[in-house]
Amino acid sequence: MKKISNVKVSTIDKGITSVLIDDASSYNSLSSVTLKSLLTVFKNLNKDNITKVIIIEGSGKGFSAGHNLKELKSYKKKKDYQKLFNLCSDLMMEIVDGRKPVIAKVHGSAYAAGCQLVASCDLVLSTDDAKFATPGVNIGLFCSTPMVAVSRKVSKKRMMKMLLTGEPIDAITAKEFGLINDFYPKEKLHDEVLSLARTIASKSNLTIKLGKRAFYKQAEMPLKKAYKFTSKVMTENMMAMDAKEGISAFVEKRKPNWKDK
Amino acid sequence: MKKISNVKVSTIDKGITSVLIDDASSYNSLSSVTLKSLLTVFKNLNKDNITKVIIIEGSGKGFSAGHNLKELKSYKKKKDYQKLFNLCSDLMMEIVDGRKPVIAKVHGSAYAAGCQLVASCDLVLSTDDAKFATPGVNIGLFCSTPMVAVSRKVSKKRMMKMLLTGEPIDAITAKEFGLINDFYPKEKLHDEVLSLARTIASKSNLTIKLGKRAFYKQAEMPLKKAYKFTSKVMTENMMAMDAKEGISAFVEKRKPNWKDK
Amino acid sequence: MKKISNVKVSTIDKGITSVLIDDASSYNSLSSVTLKSLLTVFKNLNKDNITKVIIIEGSGKGFSAGHNLKELKSYKKKKDYQKLFNLCSDLMMEIVDGRKPVIAKVHGSAYAAGCQLVASCDLVLSTDDAKFATPGVNIGLFCSTPMVAVSRKVSKKRMMKMLLTGEPIDAITAKEFGLINDFYPKEKLHDEVLSLARTIASKSNLTIKLGKRAFYKQAEMPLKKAYKFTSKVMTENMMAMDAKEGISAFVEKRKPNWKDK
Repeated sequence: MKKISNVKVSTIDKGITSVLIDDASSYNSLSSVTLKSLLTVFKNLNKDNITKVIIIEGSGKGFSAGHNLKELKSYKKKKDYQKLFNLCSDLMMEIVDGRKPVIAKVHGSAYAAGCQLVASCDLVLSTDDAKFATPGVNIGLFCSTPMVAVSRKVSKKRMMKMLLTGEPIDAITAKEFGLINDFYPKEKLHDEVLSLARTIASKSNLTIKLGKRAFYKQAEMPLKKAYKFTSKVMTENMMAMDAKEGISAFVEKRKPNWKDK
Repeated sequence: MKKISNVKVSTIDKGITSVLIDDASSYNSLSSVTLKSLLTVFKNLNKDNITKVIIIEGSGKGFSAGHNLKELKSYKKKKDYQKLFNLCSDLMMEIVDGRKPVIAKVHGSAYAAGCQLVASCDLVLSTDDAKFATPGVNIGLFCSTPMVAVSRKVSKKRMMKMLLTGEPIDAITAKEFGLINDFYPKEKLHDEVLSLARTIASKSNLTIKLGKRAFYKQAEMPLKKAYKFTSKVMTENMMAMDAKEGISAFVEKRKPNWKDK
Repeated sequence: MKKISNVKVSTIDKGITSVLIDDASSYNSLSSVTLKSLLTVFKNLNKDNITKVIIIEGSGKGFSAGHNLKELKSYKKKKDYQKLFNLCSDLMMEIVDGRKPVIAKVHGSAYAAGCQLVASCDLVLSTDDAKFATPGVNIGLFCSTPMVAVSRKVSKKRMMKMLLTGEPIDAITAKEFGLINDFYPKEKLHDEVLSLARTIASKSNLTIKLGKRAFYKQAEMPLKKAYKFTSKVMTENMMAMDAKEGISAFVEKRKPNWKDK
């Protein structure tokens, strides 16, 4: 296990790495120290050759309360705020642009920038009593950066209700809204997350990398351009070893033997 | 209460203004007269310093049947139609671009441009027997402008079924589709709308204005650009009085005292 | 009935044409031969003056398994793959850009490019035991082109789960996700599809053509531009005979007599 300020990184199974936000006393607030640690960790994991799937989770009572309000309060200068919000956006972009699938494992609350972090991950499983909110409006600070991530998963009227009232939604609602994939009793969450991570880790690493990258890119293109782009991606994918091996294995009814694990 | 052609405007609680489409004999059709009145009313409300939340509703049997067919039938020249559809689009844009949250309070039917009006509001609550439709195809006039608003809330296949068959959906379906936030028995709708409006009116006016404007803008940007834009918005928000007061109040566990109510 | 390689085309009711993918021995795989046949068929149907609604379905055990893996395996050159994926994209674009509504009638499995074909249609009805998947990851070939169509109907986290795990979803889930409109017991599917097709075929052909085309175009525009564009479309629609006839019929409480059937 490696520990840098407020974040613990550990391998929990073959190819599966857990990133634990470990600052329970601040409800795992995304202070600038924690954001920097997370950004460093994700950059490294996206580059290494062992990690296939990343799980992000929080220690203590819940996932994350979002920005650290004491830190926000202590700042005086405009440029300090700008720097903090840019750093936070850089972390979210690193997760989206990164090459490894990221699963958020959520218990307790995921609020404000914590909710943004959840929305930025590829997949989310939570406990059945988890809560999600963009409550900035209650403290006079609209959740403007969090809504960038959340509104790309939750449709407009639902998102607007969350933003304008600041009220939390429960796990059932979050699943209905498409913000999370599923929820489980607390005692089952770990096993469910691990099982999902193992399923993904069993695939060709190369294929997953190509696919994740292409997914978010094509999502921002008009239809025709998206087809041109992904036709090229699929051709590249087909020319690589793992697709030929995978198709051969399927036709021959045997397990594939991935080269680029 | 102020009344201009076919529209009544009244303050129903502190900071909460009701806009009533009052042309029950035409099922509150969006004739050019009514559209002009609504556009004037929204422009004024978006500028005044008292209104914090706008409620739009219809008098008589239902919300609105859409364009006035007798008026449409009476026109001869192309430019008259163009003018009418542009006027209607201007109203919808004023609601979206405006600075005050708009709640649609829907009973009976919201059809065609009436459904577009509902879709253009930030939040929608309806009676449990409300109906929503884009039925233009039944009279040979595809709901082309209504679909602009509705298709940005309802996913493509669901929207296509509404457009190609012209058939209405009920409140349960409209909630599932994300077109409305919730529905209630007729006798409870007013209280629910008022309660929602009061929740929003209790927030900092400045924060809500900044937030609503940023929401619809960022929704049309690619992810990276959206983060750049909203990081700036959040910095501006943070430098304003209300965010500092809100955070102080939260940390000190007291009620915030908004400057820009 | 007309038959070209692997595809049967037949008129099943007035203005309603069935396109049957008829290669049951390969689970209606979308081989280059079948793709070429389908592209030719759709191009012709989009041009003819009789067809008002197109139904696409598969023969044998299910709808379609996607690309033909034996064919994929046999290719050696990069340009052969590129050609195949481009051909597949051309078919999907012909369906979206075409002038006639297309209903997918799905039984059994719709996998990979078969799922893409389903997602590309305007409306989808399936049997209650139908399955949908983007399982390319299992054979090392990420469903990059299928995700273009599917991710424009299914929200991001749900789509990512399908793509990263390769696991199928059932009809209930596909309806929740907005990938299909509805599902029925096997013995009722044909009647339900026919009834939906008849409803659409009873409308003005001209109106439907204008509307379908405008729908997908406006969906890719920012809001303000979309309003400008559709205001023009609605004006054109209004100046055509069928809208005037439709409005007159509605006001006079009689059935419309469409000129452009």
